[in-house]
Amino acid sequence: MTHPLLDLPPLTAAHFAAIERRVAALLATEHDVVITQGEALLPLEGCVRGGARPGSTALNVVTGPYGQTFGDWLRDCGATVVDLTVPFDEAVTPAQVERALAARPETDFVSLVHAEAATGNTNPVAEIGEVVRAHGALFMLDAVASVAAEPLLPDAWGVDLCVIGAQKAMGGPAGVSAVSVSDRAWERLAANPQAPRRSYLSLLDWKERWIDTGRKALPHAPAQLEMLALEASLERIEAAGLDTVTARHALAAAATRAGTLALGGGLAPYVRDPAAAAPVATTLRTPAGVDAAELVGKVLAAGPALPVVAGGGALAGEMIRVNHYGPDATRETVLSCLDALGAALAETGADVDRKAAADAVADMWR
Amino acid sequence: MTHPLLDLPPLTAAHFAAIERRVAALLATEHDVVITQGEALLPLEGCVRGGARPGSTALNVVTGPYGQTFGDWLRDCGATVVDLTVPFDEAVTPAQVERALAARPETDFVSLVHAEAATGNTNPVAEIGEVVRAHGALFMLDAVASVAAEPLLPDAWGVDLCVIGAQKAMGGPAGVSAVSVSDRAWERLAANPQAPRRSYLSLLDWKERWIDTGRKALPHAPAQLEMLALEASLERIEAAGLDTVTARHALAAAATRAGTLALGGGLAPYVRDPAAAAPVATTLRTPAGVDAAELVGKVLAAGPALPVVAGGGALAGEMIRVNHYGPDATRETVLSCLDALGAALAETGADVDRKAAADAVADMWR
Amino acid sequence: MTHPLLDLPPLTAAHFAAIERRVAALLATEHDVVITQGEALLPLEGCVRGGARPGSTALNVVTGPYGQTFGDWLRDCGATVVDLTVPFDEAVTPAQVERALAARPETDFVSLVHAEAATGNTNPVAEIGEVVRAHGALFMLDAVASVAAEPLLPDAWGVDLCVIGAQKAMGGPAGVSAVSVSDRAWERLAANPQAPRRSYLSLLDWKERWIDTGRKALPHAPAQLEMLALEASLERIEAAGLDTVTARHALAAAATRAGTLALGGGLAPYVRDPAAAAPVATTLRTPAGVDAAELVGKVLAAGPALPVVAGGGALAGEMIRVNHYGPDATRETVLSCLDALGAALAETGADVDRKAAADAVADMWR
Amino acid sequence: MTHPLLDLPPLTAAHFAAIERRVAALLATEHDVVITQGEALLPLEGCVRGGARPGSTALNVVTGPYGQTFGDWLRDCGATVVDLTVPFDEAVTPAQVERALAARPETDFVSLVHAEAATGNTNPVAEIGEVVRAHGALFMLDAVASVAAEPLLPDAWGVDLCVIGAQKAMGGPAGVSAVSVSDRAWERLAANPQAPRRSYLSLLDWKERWIDTGRKALPHAPAQLEMLALEASLERIEAAGLDTVTARHALAAAATRAGTLALGGGLAPYVRDPAAAAPVATTLRTPAGVDAAELVGKVLAAGPALPVVAGGGALAGEMIRVNHYGPDATRETVLSCLDALGAALAETGADVDRKAAADAVADMWR
Repeated sequence: MTHPLLDLPPLTAAHFAAIERRVAALLATEHDVVITQGEALLPLEGCVRGGARPGSTALNVVTGPYGQTFGDWLRDCGATVVDLTVPFDEAVTPAQVERALAARPETDFVSLVHAEAATGNTNPVAEIGEVVRAHGALFMLDAVASVAAEPLLPDAWGVDLCVIGAQKAMGGPAGVSAVSVSDRAWERLAANPQAPRRSYLSLLDWKERWIDTGRKALPHAPAQLEMLALEASLERIEAAGLDTVTARHALAAAATRAGTLALGGGLAPYVRDPAAAAPVATTLRTPAGVDAAELVGKVLAAGPALPVVAGGGALAGEMIRVNHYGPDATRETVLSCLDALGAALAETGADVDRKAAADAVADMWR
Repeated sequence: MTHPLLDLPPLTAAHFAAIERRVAALLATEHDVVITQGEALLPLEGCVRGGARPGSTALNVVTGPYGQTFGDWLRDCGATVVDLTVPFDEAVTPAQVERALAARPETDFVSLVHAEAATGNTNPVAEIGEVVRAHGALFMLDAVASVAAEPLLPDAWGVDLCVIGAQKAMGGPAGVSAVSVSDRAWERLAANPQAPRRSYLSLLDWKERWIDTGRKALPHAPAQLEMLALEASLERIEAAGLDTVTARHALAAAATRAGTLALGGGLAPYVRDPAAAAPVATTLRTPAGVDAAELVGKVLAAGPALPVVAGGGALAGEMIRVNHYGPDATRETVLSCLDALGAALAETGADVDRKAAADAVADMWR
Repeated sequence: MTHPLLDLPPLTAAHFAAIERRVAALLATEHDVVITQGEALLPLEGCVRGGARPGSTALNVVTGPYGQTFGDWLRDCGATVVDLTVPFDEAVTPAQVERALAARPETDFVSLVHAEAATGNTNPVAEIGEVVRAHGALFMLDAVASVAAEPLLPDAWGVDLCVIGAQKAMGGPAGVSAVSVSDRAWERLAANPQAPRRSYLSLLDWKERWIDTGRKALPHAPAQLEMLALEASLERIEAAGLDTVTARHALAAAATRAGTLALGGGLAPYVRDPAAAAPVATTLRTPAGVDAAELVGKVLAAGPALPVVAGGGALAGEMIRVNHYGPDATRETVLSCLDALGAALAETGADVDRKAAADAVADMWR
Repeated sequence: MTHPLLDLPPLTAAHFAAIERRVAALLATEHDVVITQGEALLPLEGCVRGGARPGSTALNVVTGPYGQTFGDWLRDCGATVVDLTVPFDEAVTPAQVERALAARPETDFVSLVHAEAATGNTNPVAEIGEVVRAHGALFMLDAVASVAAEPLLPDAWGVDLCVIGAQKAMGGPAGVSAVSVSDRAWERLAANPQAPRRSYLSLLDWKERWIDTGRKALPHAPAQLEMLALEASLERIEAAGLDTVTARHALAAAATRAGTLALGGGLAPYVRDPAAAAPVATTLRTPAGVDAAELVGKVLAAGPALPVVAGGGALAGEMIRVNHYGPDATRETVLSCLDALGAALAETGADVDRKAAADAVADMWR
């Protein structure tokens, strides 16, 4: 009995290496790329635990929940952590980073989330990278929610550890992820006696057992199907052109913003400055007196699954997120989300103009 | 380089035969089952061209477009064809069939479509089967749109040739289909010098080269992936229970009808008698002055793909069809379809109550 | 519950049309391409029944079992058929075709199998095409076993109806197939009152309902998974380069031949002239007194499935076929097949040199 | 454009939980089951790092390379480690474990590999479990290479942490794995301040965020395709019956052993006592003067990929491993491996009887 997920020949080392090269091409990186066999949290944790140690001073930029997680890991490692927390409706500025580094010249590690899907903002990585590079600290970037949604150039921007996952704008799987590692980063990890070794968290293991031995044998059996899905998502992006894919996301974000403004009824973009708004997801602030989770509940109860979610944690009451990434970065999805939000808002008595919202969205695609 | 659709070991004859047995179990049939390697039109055509010949008299019940096609094929074969055409908003009655057979006692072939997705009606096959059996004609049934949506018992009902496809209520593939063939039917085909032989249309080839030789070697390479998908859809139905699956479809149909009546605005069920309404799709009549195709266009332009289509051919102006089969036989899909239709109707100035429609649908699931 | 073969969004008409264009590119054809929803026997039958009629005279070249089938279909259609039967261990020559056409100047249809996997020969289509074109008959070619294994240029060679399947050298699925149709062929079919219409066999239906209406809506639900597999096999061939793929097949054929000669023991290439030997499969003649089916039985009983089969029909006693197409066009498969044949022959008392066979095969890949 | 690995709806929490329940049924366990999103090394590391801490004393049974890895992790955690190293061609005995525990009554953690594929042995877990339970230490078992190949009853045997992977006898994916966790084990982890928390290695995270919250939302996006493949492999085992699957492995092991003895030429089973030989793989000792890696090289160069590998590390020169798990636990694979080894040995001048080996294997299946 044959099953398409069970009866495939095993993934060869050569095939695995070929997928790595395509990831490297997507990132335009000359650095080593490691495809980690788990969700992107795995390489993120590996980077932090590999880069930080007692004696380290880390500047951790917090623009959303992932930044908070990185701070926890850094403290776990015994590093002194300076959290540069930015209101979740803004981006961090290069000047803020510069001041923070100037205040703590001993800082040797900087962690930043490029785009935070949860809060809907995106940060000016190129400019921040310049500041970090001038200072000399190791620069780790979480680009899971930005890759394929907006420009991402780790080498040009001085990113030492750039982590991606395929499950958002790439339209790919979540079960494997990748990180590009600069030579500087490898040296830093190798010099850290506390860096994970002989561990599922270890990036150094991949270097020693895979990269340095010529990529001939995989250190352990890979998540084959996720690897094939990653390859298929890369193929799709290559076929469409990366620029086309990022443009599609930019358009979806702009249309969601414009449609929200046209809809009215008190719903407003959460991130005020469009330049600071992430292309993968648009966060919205609910009108006073309207609970975000309830509103989302109405939207989802009324019809088929739309990519509309309530904010997490402290934001559950007031924030709604419209995801528009991968297959959802389309006119149809944006239209449906805004119309469903409009209908649910109307039920609360709000004065909304669903027709104007639809027109504003449609205009964007003309 | 590995691909889940390319690198599977070939489907064995034993595996193919095992899938046949599961189809037979689904139909509760003791007759031979042939899994034809093409869309259900293939076995339907094979049945007609195998069963009819110059000298045959066929009673062809026409309750929608497929009945019309069967009439064309029957005439092609040189048969004398009596078309029993029923208004598309009704079912045929056993009495009508009985009268037609009495009028032409020489009738030796009866063709009937169980449920017509295109027109939204379903016919009382059990009762009609009794009439046909009493008369003695060969009875062919197109059950593509009824299998897994409503009871289907070819042996108990005296169906000699029962054709199914998996692409509707079974939630499976369209690229293979099946037909159960009674001994009477095999004899009739074998005695017909004009029946397709050595042909892609031939059922007799399957009998001679596959069934009668012990199902040891397939006559030609099968559509392997469609076969595996068929097997997976059978597995799903077995796991859920066939009764549960048909009940889900009945509920979706009842909810669509109730929701339409609650919505108002001039939209009305096309098939007046609920007992004659198909569980796979509900057809609706648009209000005077509202073009069905335009209304559907509005629905589809406004958001994501919903299973709402305009009637075909002569019905394009006045009929809308809401499909609710397979994964769409759910509360969410029915809700969305009615709400979208309501919104589109409202734009035409109609007085609709979308809230009442949603409540009527939701009530059904309580 | 999710299943990779059940829960895909339906194949769009645009996607279907895109796959058609890739097939056309593979064949370097400007003609219309129809992707038929069944095994290649379906379009072959459609071509014959569309092209022939009472009054037609057909020259049917028989170099194997498929040629015999075409003759049966042609006679079914009422055509006068001249079978040009060539010994199965040879190719037909252009001169033979020329003579046959000169003898029956009224010939208006020529059918030819490019490569016959069953007998292991291949025919000089380019030269034959020149002869047929000079004569003016419609030229149908069965290229199922040659496409991607050897050069195939239907337009340049004057082929009016060129049928392919993906299941051999393309390493793709068997459940869909394709045919390129010249304008001349369309005219011929359209003028034939007996050509299949409103039928699963009909090519004209595809023209009228799909091509001539701008490829906007598919005439019926396609075999989606087989279509996706066809697309994936095209992608693979494009990525590797068609020339590389055909070269791989040529090498496998040459190595099988050389290895057989080195093996000795009375086993010999069935097709004497290497130029007439098909690149998809090499047929071998067993030594006197050694039954081919028994020998193959021994090979298969001794280990894992190898692509070694006994000849069919009259050839069952004396012919063995080594298939080396698609994923089997490799050094490893050829080595294994020859070694296993050598071992089985040795058991019969034959004096074989397995080492020499292995060396001869290995030499080819150097 | 549709792809079977990219366009599936996301795996729901309910579906994930259903797969967990099927894993629990496979293990006949009442304990919590966590399906970890990575290769089995991930939960193994999570168990060791969760269970051990400074002050712990661990008895680590070493019967192969995985035991060595566990020792490294245990020492990393600051535990005092007693390695009970057994020659790799034997199993550990309950008496040895009993003595080791008696010598260090403070032992609070015991780690054991059930079957070691690398060395081909298997250990009497039921009896050892009784000893460990009587002593009171926490008992961790690596059952990756035994699950579905031989009886495995963690609850009945007193196993607190039982780790499995699907990539061997289950014939499933490697990219997800699972661990059953007893209440005692949860308490132990919760009481360990050093146990991984907020980490990809953390089992406690799964308890807090998934199990204790009612399995409503997954802590992060899962490796969906690997999960579906795991489910499919469970379905297969359930359909065949677990006993049938383990019997198939036992037979393959017995046949490999018998065939090796019949083959002669100096090749011999590495694990002397058949009762200590693992059903997933049979290790063989090469004759003096024959290098194992060279012999394997010859086998693989001569034909298609067979599951024959040279021993790793110190065993590379003298040990050969024949894997016969999952789809390879068949007569055909065993026959091919022994015949290929016989052929390669014959080339070294050894006096082998390939016919006797084949007969001995075939006898087993009668």
